[in-house]
Amino acid sequence: MALKAVSSIWGSFKAHPQFDVSVANCPFTLIGNLRYDFDKCRCLGVLAEEAQRATTAVEDEKPSVPLLHSSGPHSALQQNHSKPFHNGINLLPKPLTAIDISSTPRDGSKVRVAYQGLPGAYSEDAALKAYPQCETVPCDDFEAAFKAVELWLVDKAVLPIENSVGGSIHRNYDLLLRHRLHIVGEVQLLVNHCLLGLPGVRKEELKGVVSHPQALDQCETMLSDLGVIKIGAHDTAAAAQTVASNCTRETGAIASSRAAKIYGLDVLAERIQDDDDENITRFLVLAREPIIPGTDRPHKTSIVFSLEEGPGVLFKALAVFAMRNINLSKIESRPLKQRPLRVVDDTNEGSAKYFDYLFYIDIEASMAEPRAQYALGQLQEFARFLRVLGCYPMDTIL
Amino acid sequence: MALKAVSSIWGSFKAHPQFDVSVANCPFTLIGNLRYDFDKCRCLGVLAEEAQRATTAVEDEKPSVPLLHSSGPHSALQQNHSKPFHNGINLLPKPLTAIDISSTPRDGSKVRVAYQGLPGAYSEDAALKAYPQCETVPCDDFEAAFKAVELWLVDKAVLPIENSVGGSIHRNYDLLLRHRLHIVGEVQLLVNHCLLGLPGVRKEELKGVVSHPQALDQCETMLSDLGVIKIGAHDTAAAAQTVASNCTRETGAIASSRAAKIYGLDVLAERIQDDDDENITRFLVLAREPIIPGTDRPHKTSIVFSLEEGPGVLFKALAVFAMRNINLSKIESRPLKQRPLRVVDDTNEGSAKYFDYLFYIDIEASMAEPRAQYALGQLQEFARFLRVLGCYPMDTIL
Repeated sequence: MALKAVSSIWGSFKAHPQFDVSVANCPFTLIGNLRYDFDKCRCLGVLAEEAQRATTAVEDEKPSVPLLHSSGPHSALQQNHSKPFHNGINLLPKPLTAIDISSTPRDGSKVRVAYQGLPGAYSEDAALKAYPQCETVPCDDFEAAFKAVELWLVDKAVLPIENSVGGSIHRNYDLLLRHRLHIVGEVQLLVNHCLLGLPGVRKEELKGVVSHPQALDQCETMLSDLGVIKIGAHDTAAAAQTVASNCTRETGAIASSRAAKIYGLDVLAERIQDDDDENITRFLVLAREPIIPGTDRPHKTSIVFSLEEGPGVLFKALAVFAMRNINLSKIESRPLKQRPLRVVDDTNEGSAKYFDYLFYIDIEASMAEPRAQYALGQLQEFARFLRVLGCYPMDTIL
Repeated sequence: MALKAVSSIWGSFKAHPQFDVSVANCPFTLIGNLRYDFDKCRCLGVLAEEAQRATTAVEDEKPSVPLLHSSGPHSALQQNHSKPFHNGINLLPKPLTAIDISSTPRDGSKVRVAYQGLPGAYSEDAALKAYPQCETVPCDDFEAAFKAVELWLVDKAVLPIENSVGGSIHRNYDLLLRHRLHIVGEVQLLVNHCLLGLPGVRKEELKGVVSHPQALDQCETMLSDLGVIKIGAHDTAAAAQTVASNCTRETGAIASSRAAKIYGLDVLAERIQDDDDENITRFLVLAREPIIPGTDRPHKTSIVFSLEEGPGVLFKALAVFAMRNINLSKIESRPLKQRPLRVVDDTNEGSAKYFDYLFYIDIEASMAEPRAQYALGQLQEFARFLRVLGCYPMDTIL
């Protein structure tokens, strides 16, 4: 089975062509969010200067000065992987690194990080937490963010994967299986909802508040107290943008304080989520190549697998970790009831696979540790399907 | 520990006062969705006749004809539980039943089922799947739906708990812990997104489509093909209502075909979700009293528990089921990192409890089976916290 062998999965990154390219220094023009269909870019009318900074897109102009960043032992493979878009420039391999989350690549250029949403979105906060100096690239949807990494338009993508109030996002796990990107980091972000309004507006003046439905739900108590009408928006940053562009004093938005800054709004109240809703979102940082995991600091390894159905099979699967004293920081079953799931295989072509259940597990161990290697080796003996999504340093700072 | 002992949890429903009241035959007037703060009911402008049927609210008029439905051995307890609202009528106990999901209560009145959303919401579909003849009662939020059951304004509530694409809704698990309602049934609903428009509109005329952001994301391919702008709404039924009331031919909605009927819209396209997104939502049916589980047909038992942290403890917990050949249909860990969670205890007062992790498990066994009783008995020996949320017949029909 294509993805079954741990050795072929985990070992595979060593055999892969090791390319990584930065195209950040090139003078590209603002168009709008990246979309899966890049022809259909729409102008999104970003309002303020900070938004402008954050929305440099790549598809309009060719780089004016070809920069040769580095060379390495894999340059012979370069031709196979060059995209017509880049005309072969910047395609020389960059060595794999053990610590991927850092502010500046060795070549001094800025890391470009794709995220879903508009400038001011919480996903952009996550990108900036991972790479404080990065250039953030907004995308219309998650598929576009994945494609942007795969087509070397950006270096990384951030992907929300679970929320302490909302739960895991199965759809984004599906995207991980459908594409061949690697998790190279995680970001835990404390979501701090703020009530925003036009400058000078008092919150008592508001008659309606616009935001993503989940944000509206999470701030139920405060909205109830204000007695305002709840208006749904596609995301929190879009809500802030709507309030700013419609210039209606009676409508507020729930979004981040950074969104207030970007769209020129006042923060009327902070931390407005309900008492119980301490709201933490976990994002994954994705890249074309995995990092070499170390043992110098705590690492996590994320895996997805499937088992034959029957009582006790999951128990058997957990035994491989328990007998090696490997702690789990996450376990989740996902019933699929034989609905097809598209999964990329070694030939990089997606194929539909049928599973009764998928299990998502994060283990608190680095793949550099023999106990993790042995555990996955044993798991693959009876798993119908197994894929290591990535091994990466834990984010322990909130 | 208040909720630790299985015997005291599961056994407790036998000792509870066994009340259930139907107030369905009383001539109440349409006001709008139920809210947690029932004083603040807003008129929601429901458009069509079917919506009218579905939104009978209870807080305006007192029942004109007091109906005595039944009597039983617990009538002496009645006074302790009567609410001033009902003036003591209809408060005689109804016997617990083994099969709770049925169309008509024994007294011939309609079951009243609360749901979150507007008429035409998928949650209302779920209520109608469970109780085809029921009277559905829309609520502004989930908290209001819980309160409606607790205050005997309705008989049951339906609560979405997980979605095959979106994942589990932790917030709704929290509501289950914060309240003392019992799961008496489950409903699996195949969500079939439709593109709706004003009568006579062709889909090619649309320039924008309004819906809940998750529905918009799930129909990404079709919306991309149409080249329309995505507009967020609080829920799918609200989107259909917006299109109907704004009367703009250029704007469509993504909602159910029943929403189209309710709001007088045309179905422009059916099953428009992306190929991979076979979209199943699982709802729970909640009531004030548990049902007596049988062994005549497959049952599920839903539990929540917490363990001391450490490698292997979950493995030990799963052993209690594996060694009795009890299959799990769901397992999910939820890290809480010592954030407080409000949990009701035996005194029915909520208190903040601190857990590292909560585990949600559904076992494929009825509490009427000794193996399930023994398994939970063993689990409570080392669980820091354990609560049986309910035991109920499986929904196997999609």
